[in-house]
Amino acid sequence: MKLHHIIESQQFTLPTLIELFQRADQMEQVVARGGTLDYQKKIMASLFYQPSTRTRFSFESAMLRLGGKVISTERAHEFSSVMMGETLEDTIRVVGNYCDVIVLRHDTVGGAQRAAVASAVPVINAGDGKGGEHPTQALLDLYTIYKELGVIDGVKVAMVGNLLDGRTVRSLAYLLGKFERVKIYFVAPPALQMKQDILDHLASGNVWYSLESDLSKVLAEVDVVYMTRIEPEKMPAQEKLPSPYYLDEAGIQRLRSNALILHPLPRLNEIAVGIDSDPRAAYFRQTKNGVLIRMALLASVLD
Amino acid sequence: MKLHHIIESQQFTLPTLIELFQRADQMEQVVARGGTLDYQKKIMASLFYQPSTRTRFSFESAMLRLGGKVISTERAHEFSSVMMGETLEDTIRVVGNYCDVIVLRHDTVGGAQRAAVASAVPVINAGDGKGGEHPTQALLDLYTIYKELGVIDGVKVAMVGNLLDGRTVRSLAYLLGKFERVKIYFVAPPALQMKQDILDHLASGNVWYSLESDLSKVLAEVDVVYMTRIEPEKMPAQEKLPSPYYLDEAGIQRLRSNALILHPLPRLNEIAVGIDSDPRAAYFRQTKNGVLIRMALLASVLD
Amino acid sequence: MKLHHIIESQQFTLPTLIELFQRADQMEQVVARGGTLDYQKKIMASLFYQPSTRTRFSFESAMLRLGGKVISTERAHEFSSVMMGETLEDTIRVVGNYCDVIVLRHDTVGGAQRAAVASAVPVINAGDGKGGEHPTQALLDLYTIYKELGVIDGVKVAMVGNLLDGRTVRSLAYLLGKFERVKIYFVAPPALQMKQDILDHLASGNVWYSLESDLSKVLAEVDVVYMTRIEPEKMPAQEKLPSPYYLDEAGIQRLRSNALILHPLPRLNEIAVGIDSDPRAAYFRQTKNGVLIRMALLASVLD
Repeated sequence: MKLHHIIESQQFTLPTLIELFQRADQMEQVVARGGTLDYQKKIMASLFYQPSTRTRFSFESAMLRLGGKVISTERAHEFSSVMMGETLEDTIRVVGNYCDVIVLRHDTVGGAQRAAVASAVPVINAGDGKGGEHPTQALLDLYTIYKELGVIDGVKVAMVGNLLDGRTVRSLAYLLGKFERVKIYFVAPPALQMKQDILDHLASGNVWYSLESDLSKVLAEVDVVYMTRIEPEKMPAQEKLPSPYYLDEAGIQRLRSNALILHPLPRLNEIAVGIDSDPRAAYFRQTKNGVLIRMALLASVLD
Repeated sequence: MKLHHIIESQQFTLPTLIELFQRADQMEQVVARGGTLDYQKKIMASLFYQPSTRTRFSFESAMLRLGGKVISTERAHEFSSVMMGETLEDTIRVVGNYCDVIVLRHDTVGGAQRAAVASAVPVINAGDGKGGEHPTQALLDLYTIYKELGVIDGVKVAMVGNLLDGRTVRSLAYLLGKFERVKIYFVAPPALQMKQDILDHLASGNVWYSLESDLSKVLAEVDVVYMTRIEPEKMPAQEKLPSPYYLDEAGIQRLRSNALILHPLPRLNEIAVGIDSDPRAAYFRQTKNGVLIRMALLASVLD
Repeated sequence: MKLHHIIESQQFTLPTLIELFQRADQMEQVVARGGTLDYQKKIMASLFYQPSTRTRFSFESAMLRLGGKVISTERAHEFSSVMMGETLEDTIRVVGNYCDVIVLRHDTVGGAQRAAVASAVPVINAGDGKGGEHPTQALLDLYTIYKELGVIDGVKVAMVGNLLDGRTVRSLAYLLGKFERVKIYFVAPPALQMKQDILDHLASGNVWYSLESDLSKVLAEVDVVYMTRIEPEKMPAQEKLPSPYYLDEAGIQRLRSNALILHPLPRLNEIAVGIDSDPRAAYFRQTKNGVLIRMALLASVLD
């Protein structure tokens, strides 16, 4: 598998996804060896126009685990501090002479695509603006399902929370739709439900989905509960707790014994801390899988 | 020697201290070799909730000298920037999936202990809040005495400056009390003297100490002068200079020929710059020893 | 060649420049090998009192390409955050115990020289204050001419833009004056022309130069066009565009087929983006050469 720029989750075909996940599986051996000679010559530049320590650390850990090297900034705006006038394209052309791959966090939608057009080295999109793409998050989510359940075909997934604004759930729903016999339950307050464009896309591919407003009603049905935040100010006024969009100790009683609980993190209070020690709680393992999938992506663009 | 979390100086027994110092001695050979294969697979995360470039550089230099790798932030608060709601415990569990050891600088007392409870990888406390612990500073101070004088039993140490608020002098006095026949002279304005809890602890262990208010009177007696800052606004109004809590060229005339002058740095003006070239001025060598002791600590938690 | 501190471009003799450029040429092989064993033990500290991601990335890429390691801060002022009182000299003595070479960006003229006096390890000046020195930029500019044209003797160079305030053009003019039969055309609005001290220096060495105010008149004459920014507020009011200090597609028609267009970057609008794909546009290759020259400099001070 040879990839070049990684800009949006839509660019991944089903065979590429499978090959990527198999390569991520192999990365645990690379970690055990402490990297490989192939990447000792390689430099990754973390070029972040906004701080995102979580994403930056995950990519940098991945590059170091491969055996490679890293240069890093979370204040990329200061690249052009002298005149406040350098274009993103010029910055990318310069940084491309200092490294072998650029991991870009930009603050405007479409920034990663603009960078890719200008760049002589591969660009990996680590998030570009509110509402933009963040493909590696969706890939690591999907990889976690693949790795933990062994299969994605036929999986039943509940997506919970603010689905209207959630970048992650949109991309994950899109990618899930590439697999066979998947069922998706969108669980959200009506005002925060999944947008019609994704629903239309799923319908056009004959992917089963349903719109729900109470998590407790679907818990017994699903293989995966994918929790996301609902910002407090967007949460509908509640007559009584518990919230129908939160997961607590009572809730997981209904969950199948081999089900998975996922969350892109950070969490606010939508998953009770008491659940963390349950073996089905996979959200911290998910971050570990994020390093493996980013190792596989970096290797695929550097080879 | 196998250590796990390093949270406070009180956790070190006398045999562990001796073994640690012997291991630090060996680290000069590891530096000369450019690290060892054992640590090439290892990643240290610098997770700093406050900037402290001095401490961060010392730990990162130590990890690189071992042959290991580093990911780093001085803006760890931005880990939870999306929601400003992630707990320290969640952040630690995530970062632990990106690395093999976490060096934590937190901004609240007890932060390191909370992190250690949550963490699957070793946590090293690099300072947690005003008045909290900063154990590696006390360890490097004590190691410097051991390394430069060859022995700690029987040493006579003057601690000078603001002893009331000084985290370092408290920990160092505590650790010195583990050795035989140590004598400690606390030299400070009465309002800034060492707190009673440490004095009681020393008394309970039959450690000799005295409270002094004029450095010049003890200089001829001691093997080590440990200078610390007195913030200008806390310095008592002086009828005349020189200050009884400053060390100048005249002062070191009284000092024994093989005595040591230490300082945790940064200094303000409590040690005259003219003393820097005196062979007894060990405060810059102290920072070099800090790298060795942190190499030994990192090695001990990573093995 | 063995260098120690690198503080100002004036310290380089003609034979040292030639040897440096030959060493930079060899560095492409070191990059291909992924560094050498000689530098695996070495740590470079990026000690930046001002952010300058471009310069920092270039040096850090150079050190990593050599096979070495890096510790890095762009907020060096926080080294002395506790008391806001530590001197630059004390900071340098501490950092020198954490690394093998310090790359210093300071915010006051003469800061690099002060650091060099205090330092036990080599200091490389990466810019010290507005109007101070930034010797590695001038060296990479000159190296680019050497590398691309094969020779510097006899070269004809137009320097264009705000020559009054431009640190880079001053240093480059100084260094060019060391070579034989060089001709320099200073092209600037009269109020922004090269200062008399440099002109006197060139005259004393019998270096040919002329003062020009229209770039289009010299384009056909020169081997190198070295463009620099004119801040909008300093640009004289123009009756009509195109500006006589900008380079556009029409302008490069007049340029010799083997001429070079250089720019220290970032650019504002003084070079039309349409020129970027012209093979004579060497300003992005210039940043690649910057890594090679900094590798050669680092190697020369570390050996």
